[in-house]
Amino acid sequence: MIVVLKKEASKAKEEQLIEWLKGMGLGIHISVGEYQTVLGLIGDTSKVDMDLIGSLDIVDSVKRVTDTFKCVNRQFHPDDTVVKVGDVKIGGGNFAMIAGPCSVESESQIVEVAKAVKEAGANLLRGGAFKPRTSPYDFQGLKAEGLELLKIARKETGLPIVTEIMSVSDLPLFEDVDVLQVGARNMQNFDLLKELGATGKPILLKRGLANTLKELLMSAEYIMASGNEQVILCERGIRTYSDYMRNTLDLSAVPMLHELSHLPVIVDPSHATGIARMVPPMALSAAACGADGLIIEVHNDPIHALCDGAQSLRPEEYAELVVKVNAVREAIK
Amino acid sequence: MIVVLKKEASKAKEEQLIEWLKGMGLGIHISVGEYQTVLGLIGDTSKVDMDLIGSLDIVDSVKRVTDTFKCVNRQFHPDDTVVKVGDVKIGGGNFAMIAGPCSVESESQIVEVAKAVKEAGANLLRGGAFKPRTSPYDFQGLKAEGLELLKIARKETGLPIVTEIMSVSDLPLFEDVDVLQVGARNMQNFDLLKELGATGKPILLKRGLANTLKELLMSAEYIMASGNEQVILCERGIRTYSDYMRNTLDLSAVPMLHELSHLPVIVDPSHATGIARMVPPMALSAAACGADGLIIEVHNDPIHALCDGAQSLRPEEYAELVVKVNAVREAIK
Amino acid sequence: MIVVLKKEASKAKEEQLIEWLKGMGLGIHISVGEYQTVLGLIGDTSKVDMDLIGSLDIVDSVKRVTDTFKCVNRQFHPDDTVVKVGDVKIGGGNFAMIAGPCSVESESQIVEVAKAVKEAGANLLRGGAFKPRTSPYDFQGLKAEGLELLKIARKETGLPIVTEIMSVSDLPLFEDVDVLQVGARNMQNFDLLKELGATGKPILLKRGLANTLKELLMSAEYIMASGNEQVILCERGIRTYSDYMRNTLDLSAVPMLHELSHLPVIVDPSHATGIARMVPPMALSAAACGADGLIIEVHNDPIHALCDGAQSLRPEEYAELVVKVNAVREAIK
Amino acid sequence: MIVVLKKEASKAKEEQLIEWLKGMGLGIHISVGEYQTVLGLIGDTSKVDMDLIGSLDIVDSVKRVTDTFKCVNRQFHPDDTVVKVGDVKIGGGNFAMIAGPCSVESESQIVEVAKAVKEAGANLLRGGAFKPRTSPYDFQGLKAEGLELLKIARKETGLPIVTEIMSVSDLPLFEDVDVLQVGARNMQNFDLLKELGATGKPILLKRGLANTLKELLMSAEYIMASGNEQVILCERGIRTYSDYMRNTLDLSAVPMLHELSHLPVIVDPSHATGIARMVPPMALSAAACGADGLIIEVHNDPIHALCDGAQSLRPEEYAELVVKVNAVREAIK
Repeated sequence: MIVVLKKEASKAKEEQLIEWLKGMGLGIHISVGEYQTVLGLIGDTSKVDMDLIGSLDIVDSVKRVTDTFKCVNRQFHPDDTVVKVGDVKIGGGNFAMIAGPCSVESESQIVEVAKAVKEAGANLLRGGAFKPRTSPYDFQGLKAEGLELLKIARKETGLPIVTEIMSVSDLPLFEDVDVLQVGARNMQNFDLLKELGATGKPILLKRGLANTLKELLMSAEYIMASGNEQVILCERGIRTYSDYMRNTLDLSAVPMLHELSHLPVIVDPSHATGIARMVPPMALSAAACGADGLIIEVHNDPIHALCDGAQSLRPEEYAELVVKVNAVREAIK
Repeated sequence: MIVVLKKEASKAKEEQLIEWLKGMGLGIHISVGEYQTVLGLIGDTSKVDMDLIGSLDIVDSVKRVTDTFKCVNRQFHPDDTVVKVGDVKIGGGNFAMIAGPCSVESESQIVEVAKAVKEAGANLLRGGAFKPRTSPYDFQGLKAEGLELLKIARKETGLPIVTEIMSVSDLPLFEDVDVLQVGARNMQNFDLLKELGATGKPILLKRGLANTLKELLMSAEYIMASGNEQVILCERGIRTYSDYMRNTLDLSAVPMLHELSHLPVIVDPSHATGIARMVPPMALSAAACGADGLIIEVHNDPIHALCDGAQSLRPEEYAELVVKVNAVREAIK
Repeated sequence: MIVVLKKEASKAKEEQLIEWLKGMGLGIHISVGEYQTVLGLIGDTSKVDMDLIGSLDIVDSVKRVTDTFKCVNRQFHPDDTVVKVGDVKIGGGNFAMIAGPCSVESESQIVEVAKAVKEAGANLLRGGAFKPRTSPYDFQGLKAEGLELLKIARKETGLPIVTEIMSVSDLPLFEDVDVLQVGARNMQNFDLLKELGATGKPILLKRGLANTLKELLMSAEYIMASGNEQVILCERGIRTYSDYMRNTLDLSAVPMLHELSHLPVIVDPSHATGIARMVPPMALSAAACGADGLIIEVHNDPIHALCDGAQSLRPEEYAELVVKVNAVREAIK
Repeated sequence: MIVVLKKEASKAKEEQLIEWLKGMGLGIHISVGEYQTVLGLIGDTSKVDMDLIGSLDIVDSVKRVTDTFKCVNRQFHPDDTVVKVGDVKIGGGNFAMIAGPCSVESESQIVEVAKAVKEAGANLLRGGAFKPRTSPYDFQGLKAEGLELLKIARKETGLPIVTEIMSVSDLPLFEDVDVLQVGARNMQNFDLLKELGATGKPILLKRGLANTLKELLMSAEYIMASGNEQVILCERGIRTYSDYMRNTLDLSAVPMLHELSHLPVIVDPSHATGIARMVPPMALSAAACGADGLIIEVHNDPIHALCDGAQSLRPEEYAELVVKVNAVREAIK
């Protein structure tokens, strides 16, 4: 950790600060510059409160020189992590094609969509049973019943299932779910992350609405530090002042997360844009910058069939997209 | 709800959409303009999926004409809600001065600070026992022990206590806490909100890092719809591209929330700025635009005493600030 | 234009507003809903101040139903615009590979880089002569001399030149420049846009730091309304709270701008990320979502050659990238 | 300047970097930590390209330890600058009450409003003659004629006039204007800033839509470095994801700019909120955190008089506000 003192810092206060830091068991390397004094803190600085130091009136700024994430850090784990879900592998050159409806609505719906996406080339099935909704008056999902219907669809197709968990208390219901998804709004629900760390199951961790990459990695660190190494990161769009799109898909997160971490990184173009006709170009872009998979909404109901453009793709649109995604993946090899 | 169709929408698709909407039990008022057709949807549109309609290829845009929040809405509840915590009232002209340390550290610390802030003019005591931390390796609070120490401080001073709850499973521990705080990261932890709605206890709901006012009100609606009317809203700074401050305090939220809702609105200048010397000006600004209270970090430990500038104020700084806050409240009457 | 009145709007004020609107020569279509009254304004609403109407106390919201951009609008001009720069075409399936150094530094530098990027596959040469710098103490470019050096490089290689113009008063110096670039900071320098509209020269218009797509299109409209149809739009990253990247590249802008407008859209991954090793993945992503070109920094100086990672690519890295970009463009056909 | 090298940086590259830095005439202080090596650069680092260094693959991060702004810096100029406009002083305890209509529309309008705001307590008159508009089809102001009408209003009331200049080529028209305003969209129009630096006239510099405080100060530095010390900074709201307000007023900018710089700082609550009924609470908040003045839109035309709520206040509302602003200024003394 490096502490830059202000030019006008009094000698007395400077010495008090140094004593206090030494009292925490740290070695201090003092470097007196032309304009400012710089303290280099040596030893275990993980317990030092950076914000506190930074807010002292004699301190200009503070900088950590070692990242605080460990388990997720590529520096300490150079090889790509490959997450295994049954026979499906994600990461390290293996690509996840996750598809399915926004919400599980009925047995016929989920089974039909599952068959269609499998046919189109998907290797995992998604579907919401517990739905986080901004309004308490909106449909909250079929819950336990939805999970049962997903399992039926899995049995019919062999596709492993991915679905969102919102609360620690629902964990027992998810015992037979293949991949547990943490939604954007729960990315910093640390109690949930710790419990998921204890399950050992593959976790799909979505980036929060306005969270930085570091915060996303620290949330993955919560899961890994609790003993679970099966974490998949997911970029799903961040909140900006975008006028024609729901969120702004931050694709540069994909190569940057790959540089910082060994965990697989997938992309959700459906939620990022909220517009079905924007999903294919953004899915291709995700494949082009090296994403390890895509999670895409696909439906088969009449209003969607009637009109193009809803957030969800129709199965035939998805099938076309899969072909192009594979072509792009081939092109960048 | 108003649906604006695209100029080039085909007649056939338009009619299919209208039929589909009628099938949901809605009346449709069609207004054919020079350039575009506008559908007015009449009846209970709360179950209509605005995003789905908006994403159809024949639709230009959709607009709800009635807000979806009900319990929190000033339209249906014109009088200010006054939240009562023991003898302390918040809202409707009653001002909350909530103060205390960031974390509860020891009995002597919390009791000493509690006495100091009471002396300075605070009417509620804050202190973190369960601490949400970005990193799993950072101090997570004294937890249950911290809650016990807060109760000791309450007994010594008579100040009701305000402290954060992070998980539904911790609820039994908070039975004797006066005000339960929901932190910014949990603003959309809907399961937690519903459970807090069932407690009947006063809830201090902090605005999320990048949440809109509507989302904050919808989260309050979750609590109220579960039967609890004792909700205090809190503006604590939002994430922007600020270079010298941790967050950007959005004070215009105060008068706007007062217009939209009857709930009391308080401000947290300590977390918004992250810099103690910015706390007094921002606290005065909050009072000047009509906030119903302030939640401010105050400490008494040596490193803070040594140097000005940490996020927390010293008791004597807080005492000075209380005097000025009262003067500003008087000035705007 | 649609004006939604508030539920509680008084009849008297409502009538006054309607009279006032009629006085502006507009037809008014009144639709009384269960909860609210909606006015449909018919006729030429382009002179109506939407913000003023929206701020009236009886008005809930206002919505324009026709976009205010005309010349740039794909609705009125369905075919792709193809911008011609000498023999090079941009848009409508023609791809611009613009490359060169950030700043023109010397004759040998710019000629050497020009030859290298041409060899690698570039069809236009970029290089800054007038440099907008945040600080008045930073290098502001070689100015007129830099323009002369660019022309020498053009003569040596045949590559048309693209360079930034910062001020109307510099226009005479740019007479012999092939493409005039408007930088992000000048996107809403309306006087400059109007003057560039009068030149008839191809204009490369960069999106401003935090501007919406609508604002970008309105700025293009300024140029086109002044008589110049040769406009190329450029996405170059927007300002967010990104922690590891200079800006956030908003690639969804590419398909959305293509939907809204007939103008070509190119991408600048160098400025968007600020990190050379992020340029190739983002360039490939841009090609994958249908961009009409790429503007990329390439250099040949020793410090860059010494270490990987600067914002600029080395010529050999650029050559490799061109091959992959072409492969991706082939894959998405 | 401090350069933190990556843990895995090769010795060879490290030495090449050090040689290169020495070649620029800098002294290098090398501090080898447990995990990383830190270089302290001593000497004139103003010409070192921080972004270039930061992007090298062996470099973890770079930090400037001295701010690059000089003229605007309070460190080198501890006393408050007091800008003088005729008899009116701004800064150092002197408060500017600038008021007037958004646009100058006619002689009777501007004279009437000028008299009304003077009566209400304003000491400067604002009014737009040259209007920057997002759309080329929107009203662009009365231009030269508007300036003449402002001068008539000044003659009638004695109030100095403040109005926006958009282009260097208009400068001759502004010779007799008292304060030249640079709008948000032109904050980084560096050619304009330099020219204004040469005029010696008081400049009101508005913060750009999404600019940081450092960028605002660097733009002021452009004006001051060109010889003009009469600069007034103005916070007018920044772009975020706000849902009920046009922009987010960043009031914490006021005390932070006061700490960083000696220049006066005023606030524009009219443009920040876009809603007249939000102007008084935000104006009071601005006064409470120590702003040196307020620039507020006031009108007298019928549609505004008809309905509350437009962005502009009516003269009687402004008069009431002035009284409260003075009371708040008194309260915080």
